[in-house]
Amino acid sequence: MSNHREVIEHIYQTIKSIDNIGKVAKYIPDLAKVAPSKFGVAYRSIENEEYGIGDWQTKLSIQSISKVLSLSLAYRLLGEDIWARVGVEPSGNAFNSLVQLETDNGIPRNPFINGGAMVICDMLVSHLENPKADFLEYVRDISSCNEISYSASTAKSEEEVGYRNKALCNFIKSFGNIENSPDEVLDFYFHMCSIEMTCQELTKTFSFLAFSNFKTHNGDQVLNLSQTKRLNALMQTCGFYDESGEFAFKVGLPGKSGVGGGIIALHPEKYCLAVWSPRLNEKGNSHRGMKFLESFTTETKLSIF
Amino acid sequence: MSNHREVIEHIYQTIKSIDNIGKVAKYIPDLAKVAPSKFGVAYRSIENEEYGIGDWQTKLSIQSISKVLSLSLAYRLLGEDIWARVGVEPSGNAFNSLVQLETDNGIPRNPFINGGAMVICDMLVSHLENPKADFLEYVRDISSCNEISYSASTAKSEEEVGYRNKALCNFIKSFGNIENSPDEVLDFYFHMCSIEMTCQELTKTFSFLAFSNFKTHNGDQVLNLSQTKRLNALMQTCGFYDESGEFAFKVGLPGKSGVGGGIIALHPEKYCLAVWSPRLNEKGNSHRGMKFLESFTTETKLSIF
Amino acid sequence: MSNHREVIEHIYQTIKSIDNIGKVAKYIPDLAKVAPSKFGVAYRSIENEEYGIGDWQTKLSIQSISKVLSLSLAYRLLGEDIWARVGVEPSGNAFNSLVQLETDNGIPRNPFINGGAMVICDMLVSHLENPKADFLEYVRDISSCNEISYSASTAKSEEEVGYRNKALCNFIKSFGNIENSPDEVLDFYFHMCSIEMTCQELTKTFSFLAFSNFKTHNGDQVLNLSQTKRLNALMQTCGFYDESGEFAFKVGLPGKSGVGGGIIALHPEKYCLAVWSPRLNEKGNSHRGMKFLESFTTETKLSIF
Amino acid sequence: MSNHREVIEHIYQTIKSIDNIGKVAKYIPDLAKVAPSKFGVAYRSIENEEYGIGDWQTKLSIQSISKVLSLSLAYRLLGEDIWARVGVEPSGNAFNSLVQLETDNGIPRNPFINGGAMVICDMLVSHLENPKADFLEYVRDISSCNEISYSASTAKSEEEVGYRNKALCNFIKSFGNIENSPDEVLDFYFHMCSIEMTCQELTKTFSFLAFSNFKTHNGDQVLNLSQTKRLNALMQTCGFYDESGEFAFKVGLPGKSGVGGGIIALHPEKYCLAVWSPRLNEKGNSHRGMKFLESFTTETKLSIF
Repeated sequence: MSNHREVIEHIYQTIKSIDNIGKVAKYIPDLAKVAPSKFGVAYRSIENEEYGIGDWQTKLSIQSISKVLSLSLAYRLLGEDIWARVGVEPSGNAFNSLVQLETDNGIPRNPFINGGAMVICDMLVSHLENPKADFLEYVRDISSCNEISYSASTAKSEEEVGYRNKALCNFIKSFGNIENSPDEVLDFYFHMCSIEMTCQELTKTFSFLAFSNFKTHNGDQVLNLSQTKRLNALMQTCGFYDESGEFAFKVGLPGKSGVGGGIIALHPEKYCLAVWSPRLNEKGNSHRGMKFLESFTTETKLSIF
Repeated sequence: MSNHREVIEHIYQTIKSIDNIGKVAKYIPDLAKVAPSKFGVAYRSIENEEYGIGDWQTKLSIQSISKVLSLSLAYRLLGEDIWARVGVEPSGNAFNSLVQLETDNGIPRNPFINGGAMVICDMLVSHLENPKADFLEYVRDISSCNEISYSASTAKSEEEVGYRNKALCNFIKSFGNIENSPDEVLDFYFHMCSIEMTCQELTKTFSFLAFSNFKTHNGDQVLNLSQTKRLNALMQTCGFYDESGEFAFKVGLPGKSGVGGGIIALHPEKYCLAVWSPRLNEKGNSHRGMKFLESFTTETKLSIF
Repeated sequence: MSNHREVIEHIYQTIKSIDNIGKVAKYIPDLAKVAPSKFGVAYRSIENEEYGIGDWQTKLSIQSISKVLSLSLAYRLLGEDIWARVGVEPSGNAFNSLVQLETDNGIPRNPFINGGAMVICDMLVSHLENPKADFLEYVRDISSCNEISYSASTAKSEEEVGYRNKALCNFIKSFGNIENSPDEVLDFYFHMCSIEMTCQELTKTFSFLAFSNFKTHNGDQVLNLSQTKRLNALMQTCGFYDESGEFAFKVGLPGKSGVGGGIIALHPEKYCLAVWSPRLNEKGNSHRGMKFLESFTTETKLSIF
Repeated sequence: MSNHREVIEHIYQTIKSIDNIGKVAKYIPDLAKVAPSKFGVAYRSIENEEYGIGDWQTKLSIQSISKVLSLSLAYRLLGEDIWARVGVEPSGNAFNSLVQLETDNGIPRNPFINGGAMVICDMLVSHLENPKADFLEYVRDISSCNEISYSASTAKSEEEVGYRNKALCNFIKSFGNIENSPDEVLDFYFHMCSIEMTCQELTKTFSFLAFSNFKTHNGDQVLNLSQTKRLNALMQTCGFYDESGEFAFKVGLPGKSGVGGGIIALHPEKYCLAVWSPRLNEKGNSHRGMKFLESFTTETKLSIF
């Protein structure tokens, strides 16, 4: 850890001193308001030591990172049955997503592309009594962070401009792979994506995937070992849109990014690392976040490969 | 190791006793002649202990597994420059490959789809004095196995029916991403894919990727640590066609399959495992090979995730 | 005409006596209720002679045939400006429609594919004071048939199962090529498609495209000569989904079909011909209707080619 | 005719006086040598009156226009059987051609896209004793022009850079829809496209499609009436790549263009019109040629619609 701490500090300062390029996500009006200079890193080891630097205790909109959490809840509740309705393959690229839905009869490629996440949301809407409240409770439970909440304004902001997501949800519905009304599913989906956390909270929340000995404050295991490994594999192959291969190649860790500029990455049985910087590269991943993680595994010479 | 040995024996016998389903690759006349009942497994640990069962010392046509070897030689010779001409992203699915070449201006998605492997072959044809002889020498060198050879009849057999590969190579040439004549590149490509090895030889050959302390008989390191990790990451995300996600999900190891029914998989710093059974599932990967590896990481509770 | 009358009667009886194959459109519950044995033909010459046989005076749901009418109204009101938002090219096939919207930035290929018709509907929603009432009045006006109406139950039926159309409209909206709310546009679209006419009324309604000397009961010309020719050309190249080429090839007349089993075809300056038979071939066009028209132009040895 | 003559002269002078924009085809080195200022028009009526202006008696490389001629020969020799191996539908756009071949199992969309023309060439290679000599004789025969020849240098020039066409031919071969060796088929294809004619010769050559009373100097009818109408319909729907709809819309005549800058258009039973100007618009059709024909049907107020 002490070594990791120094590496983090060194890389953080190096990256902070160079150009902060890329663009803050603008398609959701609410996200466009964030200060582009925000930059934070939080680290948590399997020994539960933690370290943070920069804006690591400021809330960010975790966006797509949340898709791992909704998936984990559906997996916990419904087991392997969920894979009948959503695949586990990388999608190739954004461009093909609608064609693939057509050729694959409405079965999205994986649970991290928007369509796949909507199918998972649909399962939760069918299964949970109060989907939004129950999901939030689950996230607070596994993280032991009661201050985690939805952002009503972000959810509303996404709903207002979310024509492409509405198109996607209705398209999947037309194949029969959405059980509930698209409006209901989308409402849950937009809220799920609006969750706000700090980097510190992200490392707490994702400890259940990083550490096989993890237990919630109630002594519960969230997922079994096989399920945990499988979610990590999914993050590895599909977690970064069409930059997933590049991330595996350069960083070599399972992880997930969001258009809010957050990235969570983890080295199983070793550590959990959250980075936040709002400017995105052309693939939609945090520019500084990617740089930070690449430097981190390069300097520590540790990756899962 | 002793534990691994028992697990291998147990799983081998279990799988041998159940139905041997799937189809032997028929599109290359020469491959169709192999006895579908062949089944072998070879294991090699970082301590250089080895173990084998069944047809582990019978030659098989390694086919696409060879793409990792040609890539490793190009990477060794030309370094990071190779990535300007071929990507590192999963391709999504077979169906899109030609569209993707069109939208990506002739830059194949990754070096393991046929088009990507041809671009790598083109680099070697440009760089090596005697491409076929030099490549074979490289493979013999890293494996310390002098009995490894091309199968002239398999190469000829592939050439005779390889219209789709000819289409692909000419298509990439039309974008300017093949330097040499398509005929010359394809001749090298078909020979490269025709290499024959035993499972035992496969584990020896891939030790340079599995074990960071690996040295050839001359004391050479084949690739540096960063390069090794990157090739492993590539195998993880792109090694099994459109079943790569499934393999990461169920097996959780970097690996590579070939239509001859062989699969190589490796757990970095732990072991190297080769399986061979010619009947393929509908995605073109060895049916028994996939089952074997899934059972192995499940029973040993060890994967990179 | 007398000759045409005999040919029609002869072909009608021949086709009636052979198997009535194909399937009635089932995806809209309301359409599935129609008796599959319905079969009617109406003919109208430039000299205003008319002739009908079978169910030529029974109402049918004209469905996509209506897209020619909404297009003609938009063309009349807005002139050549409409082509900035919708193309005039055949779409190739159904399969590509969403990809094409993506590559073409939300500009549908032509006004007869669903997306194109929605863009036209959006123009009318923006331009008309009471879109549904005004459009119906226009149709009654050009046909001099005051009994033409929407079917509220068909419109409702389509709305309830129209997830793919909702997907399409929201998708185009996401590119900015729909000005109004998707719900408003779709409500107009579903009503427009629900119009019911008899074959006789269809020939009256389409006389403005068939005969350059046509005037409404008020003495108005609906479109000028250039506009008329252009709509006929569009029907010729895009009027029959991915069977448009086949229709041009075998029938050789401009025309438009609907999933209700109706087809309108016209020989400029000669005649207008409406056929109705609900069973559809695999491309979604009336099986008997296509056969009838092919036989008609073959026996009369007259087509525009 | 006298009226047509005046219209042609007037439009020719008008277009000659305005900017000559667009680009001469450069991908075939031999075509790039043509003077961009060439501009000629030839007209021939059903009464066999002819008129020409500008470079109407200078040879041009007719390129894809030749596909109509090879198709007509295959149609004459093999009848309706040819449609089992090639479709009659517009292809949508260039971009999709390879995907469509994949989804359509190697059956090209129509005989005017390159793949479709190659399948037709393959039929002729199988059927003719001396394909190149026999085809040329056929063209000379129907045109009564013995000075029509292949350009050996253009054929060679195309062969040398024709990687995309080689890709296409091998791709179709991989589906089994090419019987002969791709090299043999491509040699015939490149020669076929290299035919050189003057505008005057083009109107003579295409008279068999324009005039139903046409007979060759031997008194033969080239195709029967139904076949003639069908080829005209095909030219109408598929003759101008992805500008076919636009051509139908603005010009309203069956026709065919080539990248050499030539266009043939015809009004059945009225006239045949050839235009040549080497600068192409972005869709690959002669810029001035398209303008000329649009103006011609607009001013004469005559089109098939």
